[in-house]
Order: sequence, then structure tokens, then C-alpha cells
Amino acid sequence: MPSQRELNPIDLSLYLVLDPELCGGLAGMVSTTEQAVAGGVTVVQLRAPQWKKRDWLLCARELKAVLAGSGVPLIINDHVDIALAVDADGVHVGQSDIPADVVRALIGPDKILGLSTNNLAHQQGVSAAIVDYIGVGPVYPTGTKKDAAPSLGLDEFARLMQSKPLPAVAIGGIKAGLCAPVIAAGADGVAVVSAICGQGDVRGAATGLLAEIVAGSCVA
Amino acid sequence: MPSQRELNPIDLSLYLVLDPELCGGLAGMVSTTEQAVAGGVTVVQLRAPQWKKRDWLLCARELKAVLAGSGVPLIINDHVDIALAVDADGVHVGQSDIPADVVRALIGPDKILGLSTNNLAHQQGVSAAIVDYIGVGPVYPTGTKKDAAPSLGLDEFARLMQSKPLPAVAIGGIKAGLCAPVIAAGADGVAVVSAICGQGDVRGAATGLLAEIVAGSCVA
Repeated sequence: MPSQRELNPIDLSLYLVLDPELCGGLAGMVSTTEQAVAGGVTVVQLRAPQWKKRDWLLCARELKAVLAGSGVPLIINDHVDIALAVDADGVHVGQSDIPADVVRALIGPDKILGLSTNNLAHQQGVSAAIVDYIGVGPVYPTGTKKDAAPSLGLDEFARLMQSKPLPAVAIGGIKAGLCAPVIAAGADGVAVVSAICGQGDVRGAATGLLAEIVAGSCVA
Repeated sequence: MPSQRELNPIDLSLYLVLDPELCGGLAGMVSTTEQAVAGGVTVVQLRAPQWKKRDWLLCARELKAVLAGSGVPLIINDHVDIALAVDADGVHVGQSDIPADVVRALIGPDKILGLSTNNLAHQQGVSAAIVDYIGVGPVYPTGTKKDAAPSLGLDEFARLMQSKPLPAVAIGGIKAGLCAPVIAAGADGVAVVSAICGQGDVRGAATGLLAEIVAGSCVA
């Protein structure tokens, strides 16, 4: 019988994935994070696939400083070495990145580990002994991830939620006005990029999204 | 007075940097490595900047298996997490990658750490307490590194060798017929990509390069 593991706790409600271009570079990512957290974001992920790692490291250090004491975890996309270097709260990987079991061995039991899944086979391959949450999408078409799979649509997303193996955050094209149905379909939270990054009023955007998410959870 | 560190030993004589395109993908990189080691290559570096990390991991595991017992170290370019995951012999980073002191903290004292340097300022910034060898170049124009600096030429390379802080491997456009002068100028070895990857007779190419390097060291 496999040993039961306590999942590392994470509030997925409003999960910000930073985009260097939309935020206007490193300084913009830091200020976006500050304002978004003030507006209620519950998780921040650093993702900058075009960057060299010296910039990743600089940015991760600044984000960690900004998030200190906020209770909002810093998750590093893909690069486990950056997560280790800054002692980030966790790592998020996709299906083409380092496999989750290898990541878990590198980061130890107490860090948050998220895994992107796009279909039922991916979900069935997830081990709750290793992973803490899944990212499921893209729910809607997205312009901020170059290599994204075709969008699922809300019906298929809802079907996947019926057999989710772990807490799940919905991702892909989710913006103001689209949050509540995704939560009502079974998501534990919503991940956004352009619905926060590059918005004129970042704090207000986050607050508005969070209100929709709370409303959606009342329906669910 | 800073503590003296024993450098992790590495024979830089003929240092193969694998190129996925020239080798024809993962299987070609493995077979190139096998033949090149039979021909006398003394170091193998995995470098695949366009690859996702699942492929890095697969390839690094296969290379490690091929190199087991050969005495030839496997060095991982840039991605410290991959090096940790496969327990590689070392890591090589450039000036835009994770800084050497951070890499050393991640890999521990007993792994090989190499650093790319292109000028005197870079060389002066190298700490022998942290780094084991430097890569210096590009000596000649190169087509295999997209973001390479302008080439140094042999005279400037020789000037840099006069104040090298650590064992140095020359890189950049070095092919058959060009090895001996680089060694005579003070390099401890020659790093090559296209002079081995994609050659019809990989083993023979390596053997020929090594003969030139030995000849150059007799002149030096």
C-alpha cells in the first residue's frame, strides 16, 4: 500500500503567471507582483522561457523579497535550479519538462510541485504522492503561450474536473467575465497572464477576478 | 588569506561540445560520443539550448551510460538541474547563466565547474576558489553558437593566455589544421563542435585533432 502523503498546501484561487513582455521586463514584473498581491492574488509564478538564467535568478530574488511575509508562494516554472538557488516555494513543470518524480527528488518533500495536464491520460499519470496540484488547460484559446495545446472548451474542461486527481487550477485565455463558470465547473482556482500582466490597474484587475472566483465557488 | 582549493581535475585536451542538429538528434549525439571517445576525446559536454528539459534528461542519461568507465567526464551546459538529476561530472556556464558562485553552491565542491570568458575583465572576475577551468573564445568565427561574441583572433587569444587564471580550453571555429597554434599560444586544450559532430568519420576526426594538439603542446 503506497504511503499517504500530506499535500503541500497552496491556495490556488487566483494564480498569477508573470509574462516578461506584457509586464515590460524585470522591473515591471516586480511592480505587477506587488500590486497584484495587494489585489488578492494567491500564487505567483515566474515564467520567462526566452530569458537567460542570470535574469531568471535576479528576478526570482526580487520577487522573493517582494513576496516575503505576504503568505503568497513563489513558484518557478521549469527551472528547478533557479528554484533551488533562491529557495523558492515551489516548481511548476509541464509534460516536456523534467518529469515530476525527478523534480520531487531534487526539491525535497516540502516544496510545492505543480504539473500541467491537458487531457485525461495526463491526469491519470499524475501521482498524488509526488505532485501537489495540477494546471489544466488551455480552457480557452491563449496568445501568451507559444506552444500551447488546442483549447479544451468549458465542457471538456468540466469533464476533466470530474476526475481530477488533485486540486486543479484552470489556465488558458481566462479573463474578466470568464472566471465564475470555470470555478463552477470544478476548478480550485484560475491562473491568468494577460488578465493581470499589462493591465492599467493591476490591483483592480486582481480584485475583480477574485470577486468572480468567489462568486463562482458559491455556485459550485 | 583565502583558503586554497584543489581544482577538480579535468583533462581539457580535446573537449567535445555536442550539437543536436549536426549530430542528427539524440541517437546521433550518443553514437557521436561513443566514436569520439574511441578517437581520444577527453571531455564531453551536452549543450542543446533549443531542447526542452525532458530531452536533456533522456540524453544526459544515455551519455552517462555511454561514458561510464571511460574516464571521460560528462559536463552539462547551463542547466544545473539536469546535472544534479543525472549526477553528471560537472557543469559549464557562460556569463549570462547562473553565476559561478551560485552554481558551486548547488553542485557542491567535488563537481567540475567551467566558465566561459571572452575578455580580460571576464578572466579577472574568475575565482579559482569556485571555478575549475575556463573556456576562452571564440578564437575564430563560429557558426554553431548563435549568440557568440566577435572572434578574438589568435594574437588576442595568446595575450589572454598569458594571464589565464585557470586551465583554459580554447573554443570557436577550431578545426583540423588550426589546433596546434592555439595550444602553442597557451591553451590547455581545444573545444570543438563541427570538427567532430557531423563528420563522416567521427573517430578519425577526433584522433586527427588529438594528434595536432599533442604536436602543439610539444611546441608550446
